[in-house]
Amino acid sequence: MGLTIVVERTTAHKAKPAIDQLSFGKYFTDHMFIMDYDAGKGWHHPRIVPYQPILLDPAAKVFHYGQTVFEGMKAYRTPKGQILMFRPYKNLQRLNRSNARLSIPSLDEGLVMEALRQLIKVDEDWIPAEQGTSLYIRPFVIATQATLGVSPSEQYHFIIILSPVGSYYEEGINPVSIYVESEYVRAVTGGVGNAKTGGNYAAGLKAQQEATDKGYSQVLWLDGVHRKYIEEVGSMNVFFKVGDKVITPALNGSILDGVTRDSVIRLLKHWDIEVEERAISIDELVEAYRSGLLQEAFGTGTAAVISPIGELNWQGDKLTLNEGRTGPVAAKLYDFMTGIQRGAIEDPFGWVVEIK
Amino acid sequence: MGLTIVVERTTAHKAKPAIDQLSFGKYFTDHMFIMDYDAGKGWHHPRIVPYQPILLDPAAKVFHYGQTVFEGMKAYRTPKGQILMFRPYKNLQRLNRSNARLSIPSLDEGLVMEALRQLIKVDEDWIPAEQGTSLYIRPFVIATQATLGVSPSEQYHFIIILSPVGSYYEEGINPVSIYVESEYVRAVTGGVGNAKTGGNYAAGLKAQQEATDKGYSQVLWLDGVHRKYIEEVGSMNVFFKVGDKVITPALNGSILDGVTRDSVIRLLKHWDIEVEERAISIDELVEAYRSGLLQEAFGTGTAAVISPIGELNWQGDKLTLNEGRTGPVAAKLYDFMTGIQRGAIEDPFGWVVEIK
Ligand SMILES: Cc1ncc(COP(=O)(O)O)c(C=O)c1O
Ligand SMILES: Cc1ncc(COP(=O)(O)O)c(C=O)c1O
Repeated sequence: MGLTIVVERTTAHKAKPAIDQLSFGKYFTDHMFIMDYDAGKGWHHPRIVPYQPILLDPAAKVFHYGQTVFEGMKAYRTPKGQILMFRPYKNLQRLNRSNARLSIPSLDEGLVMEALRQLIKVDEDWIPAEQGTSLYIRPFVIATQATLGVSPSEQYHFIIILSPVGSYYEEGINPVSIYVESEYVRAVTGGVGNAKTGGNYAAGLKAQQEATDKGYSQVLWLDGVHRKYIEEVGSMNVFFKVGDKVITPALNGSILDGVTRDSVIRLLKHWDIEVEERAISIDELVEAYRSGLLQEAFGTGTAAVISPIGELNWQGDKLTLNEGRTGPVAAKLYDFMTGIQRGAIEDPFGWVVEIK
Repeated sequence: MGLTIVVERTTAHKAKPAIDQLSFGKYFTDHMFIMDYDAGKGWHHPRIVPYQPILLDPAAKVFHYGQTVFEGMKAYRTPKGQILMFRPYKNLQRLNRSNARLSIPSLDEGLVMEALRQLIKVDEDWIPAEQGTSLYIRPFVIATQATLGVSPSEQYHFIIILSPVGSYYEEGINPVSIYVESEYVRAVTGGVGNAKTGGNYAAGLKAQQEATDKGYSQVLWLDGVHRKYIEEVGSMNVFFKVGDKVITPALNGSILDGVTRDSVIRLLKHWDIEVEERAISIDELVEAYRSGLLQEAFGTGTAAVISPIGELNWQGDKLTLNEGRTGPVAAKLYDFMTGIQRGAIEDPFGWVVEIK
């Protein structure tokens, strides 16, 4: 590791928002972590400083060529006052996989974990304790070199910011309506769909906006080659209960390898529920629906944890799932996941990491 | 239009780089243009200010979700001292097409043209006059709202920066070697390939880097669906001379609608050279090469204007074009295009716009 994190504490603490005002990613804590990269020098100068704007040359590559990666994770305050994180090392490994795909120099995972620990401790008063709330953690890398050639940057910032959050969906654990997208494509095999990089989200904005206008909360993406295989939802992986089985798209290179997805698969297997990871066509789903076998659908992701899907709109046909109510598998997963994340249920997997 | 551009001139002029030091996009002029957008208020406060770093909240959406667009154009100094631009309105129209695709509010093209004019005049001493040099112009939009939900930003900056440039390729008009990419994909139908947005370039960095390591200067992309149709090169459209015809990929939604591409097509037709815009498979090209019909290949783009291709590497097979030398069609196009751009040849198309 070798690098020491320098801490500069703020002298002007911000007012904390009321719990019912939290929403998602709107308020930020008093401090942030920042570290710099320069070619030849490597990552250096890790520091915790008061939360503050950053100063960048207008030619910084991040503004032009989208060379960015990010992560999303959470810290929870338990009823006993402990601070828990959920499988943080998986996020740090994915951060480095994203870095590799975007030609960004890799980060020392041990150092980043230590940065997370120290930053969370410095701002621990900001972690809300109410059911459904948490501290959302956003580590990200941006390319800062101020030259316009299209090539990997020789300079970067790695930054971590923290935001106390309520539920991601205003609806809470209530089922959402999802629009199956048939015009726009988010990512394709050979592209960057399995990396957590800004361009994937920019590519989804227009479809998301059109879906919102039609009254749907998210888009379900189909693959870009055959335009028929299920990929994922906005910022969630997706699962379907068909008969006695739960099925989810395999990691095919164009979807994100979600930490929640992996946890859900392991949890279902632990409960002796059969899970298949494979290609799933929209036609297969529609057929399962018509024959009464499609019982539940739900999204999985750090922000929403488990998000039951009450309706799928496929080319104007509305498939109502479990009568639009949260299904038993989604509910059981939600309760268990949020239970271990908040320290209310014992964690049989060693997923939870206490921040001391 | 209605908005007045406020001009604040610098009191500290920077030293100008020597002409032989220019390279591409490394030095910037004394001033920049900036304008803000806020939901409800629209675009406002257009201003020319000393070139300076910008201050952004670390939660600004541009750092996380890649909501950006940009343009690239040039101003040329003629031997008589005039300042010329090449088809700037086409770039401004494309900027707004990119904006629409990225859910960014559209810009008033008249106002942007006026901003360009005034900014270039303020920094006109920076426009180099030597053959092959020009003032590269980079208008761009970044999403600045400081909240982490994935949705179109409610705040933006539109910025224009200027950079005196030499030739894009250090090799100048000498032919480049190009690696035909068979693993990575840049864009796909239904995606954002026809918009000039950062994520497209981020998605290309790794392939570009691997090609550079193998000694190639750029990548030739194939389509993401069939993985066999020619798309474009890094930041150029691409043309092939096969027998008596010139062929170029049709605008299929996943490649950029290049201004140089459009100009070259019109110029070739003007010269009674047959041009076909259509799907072109790599197999067709290899076959044309084997039978001796593939005479020339070249890229087209604002930065390089015309860039002859001396070698194509397709899965290890090296196709040498026109014995690795600049072909007659590429040379004629280059001379004509740079001739009218620099005011040395009369412009029969009304493409050139004088900045007064
Ligand atoms: C595109 C995408 N898919 C899936 C997920 C779910 O991943 P995770 O469970 O690791 O949060 C996310 C959110 O991180 C995402 O952005
Ligand atoms: C991806 C891509 N294709 C093609 C081009 C060529 O377009 P133009 O001739 O308008 O510069 C560019 C550069 O602008 C580009 O970035």
